[in-house]
Amino acid sequence: MKLSKKNLTERQHFLYDVIIVGGGAGGLSAALYLQRYNLNCLVIEKGRGRSFWMQDLRNYLGLPPDTPGRDLLQHGQDRIVELGADHLRGFVEQVSDEGETFAVKVKVGKTDSLYPVFRSKYLIAASGLIDHLPHLADMQNVYDYAGYTLHVCMICDGYEMNDLKAGLFVNSEGNINTAFVMNWFTPYISVFTHGLCEVSEEMRHKLKEHGYPLYEQPIKRFLGQNHQLSGVELVDGTLVELETGLVAMGSQHHSHYLSEIDLERQGGNLVTDSMCRTSHPRIFALGDLKQGLNQVSIAVADGTLAATAIWREIRRASPPRRWEENIVEPIGIGVVS
Amino acid sequence: MKLSKKNLTERQHFLYDVIIVGGGAGGLSAALYLQRYNLNCLVIEKGRGRSFWMQDLRNYLGLPPDTPGRDLLQHGQDRIVELGADHLRGFVEQVSDEGETFAVKVKVGKTDSLYPVFRSKYLIAASGLIDHLPHLADMQNVYDYAGYTLHVCMICDGYEMNDLKAGLFVNSEGNINTAFVMNWFTPYISVFTHGLCEVSEEMRHKLKEHGYPLYEQPIKRFLGQNHQLSGVELVDGTLVELETGLVAMGSQHHSHYLSEIDLERQGGNLVTDSMCRTSHPRIFALGDLKQGLNQVSIAVADGTLAATAIWREIRRASPPRRWEENIVEPIGIGVVS
Repeated sequence: MKLSKKNLTERQHFLYDVIIVGGGAGGLSAALYLQRYNLNCLVIEKGRGRSFWMQDLRNYLGLPPDTPGRDLLQHGQDRIVELGADHLRGFVEQVSDEGETFAVKVKVGKTDSLYPVFRSKYLIAASGLIDHLPHLADMQNVYDYAGYTLHVCMICDGYEMNDLKAGLFVNSEGNINTAFVMNWFTPYISVFTHGLCEVSEEMRHKLKEHGYPLYEQPIKRFLGQNHQLSGVELVDGTLVELETGLVAMGSQHHSHYLSEIDLERQGGNLVTDSMCRTSHPRIFALGDLKQGLNQVSIAVADGTLAATAIWREIRRASPPRRWEENIVEPIGIGVVS
Repeated sequence: MKLSKKNLTERQHFLYDVIIVGGGAGGLSAALYLQRYNLNCLVIEKGRGRSFWMQDLRNYLGLPPDTPGRDLLQHGQDRIVELGADHLRGFVEQVSDEGETFAVKVKVGKTDSLYPVFRSKYLIAASGLIDHLPHLADMQNVYDYAGYTLHVCMICDGYEMNDLKAGLFVNSEGNINTAFVMNWFTPYISVFTHGLCEVSEEMRHKLKEHGYPLYEQPIKRFLGQNHQLSGVELVDGTLVELETGLVAMGSQHHSHYLSEIDLERQGGNLVTDSMCRTSHPRIFALGDLKQGLNQVSIAVADGTLAATAIWREIRRASPPRRWEENIVEPIGIGVVS
């Protein structure tokens, strides 16, 4: 069922098989499988994750290419609640390992917040990434384009930039190298540092050699109409014409709630085995939190894997179900009538 | 474009980046990604694979639970052709490794067949499984229930069998063990060997202990209406009431076309790395052909991985695209005007 401030208490002495932190594609897929394995789970979703922002999910097989990410999420949410999963809008503050169970402390509501604690046998971390976007005085100006014609994922949207005039927005010299991959899709690349980093002579030379202009002044605002980028205005008044853009300013894992638990990581990503199990035997990590491609299709498959691994373990530890009325008692130990 | 006998010759001197054998969920996902990476591919589909038979795709995030497999396939096929992929209905007879390229020999058409040969740099094997079904005199009687209430995949459809009277149809003693996993979903299990195997005393004892009756006579026919199984009639006239069933008779990989190429296998499955690359550096294997779960979600993710690995390799070997009009010639080596 949908949980909210009103009915939270109903689940506070309940032990879930699995609590899933994050209701994106990975978390929802895990819940779908878990419920169909007759296990019970709670999905806790803070809202506005990466797939929520995507205006068109163009590379997930089976959906029309203009399907917004939020439609996939809403559809998945409805499905899992139909199958008996619990779903709560809230922010997971801390997970504590109590030995046999996890205690998951959640902040519910921005005002008059409640702080319920839920418990489960297993934990699935599916809380993904927060993309860094350029900070402008008017952030609404950024949101007007981000996810539409200002992209954050080249693998997803490189195709949409084919041969267009494209801005590459970076915050470090390292990220400028994205230009030399992005040029597979378009050579008409202008690089913007938004005043956030120094650029070495070597990199300047490389950009010049490729014909990619470099703009180092901070951005004043993105220009365009109806989510269609047409350019950028810099603080010094420079206007640069663009048709599309890619933000390559890195991202941040949303996994602070795991801070009490010592998990193996590599370059910020959680290390997992082939079934998405982390170095903790009862914690799984999906999608963007682990190593590998940050794609909806990968997160969905990860949800399948983690749910299946958990099901196998719980099933193997459970007594077998017999067809009782077919079992004839051995002679001599019959029930006294 | 859609290829057929009429326009085959248009592509016979063309070198594809990738030929994909199999147009199921994995092959279509690979094609979707490849085309969006500006690579070109040909998908060759023999028709009537496993996902074609599935009447309801209940565990693939984003689709209504009553979506038939064939709808997913048709939708994917339309999408990739829209994106410029080629799609051919045909049966791949043999793949030969020519060093830099693969030659793929296809049989097109059941009558007056043509045998074109197509060439590509990379090969993706996505041709999946063929499930073994009970052989009855009237196979239409099997097809009336298979994929509806007579399932072939417990992970997909165990949930649909919850607490129902279920037949388990096997062809070996080993496969009878499926009962002791299936009982997670229902304890009302009747086991049918269809006269295909001997059953040891030990197994008989185990079944009796669980209360699962064993029927060893061959099946005469499945009973029911509108794809809803209601029982089985055995050749000796025995009638057994059922509400659902699971066929656990194993399956066969469809990968005979790779017979000339020495690929590492484990238990019949192709061994692949984390990007679905086989032991041959330019052959990838997806979904049911490789080790792991046989699920639509996994095949779709595998398509993503293989396409991305191929793109990276082709991109890295290609010259960078420069923004030519921005490149100022060094003084002294200017173009003579």
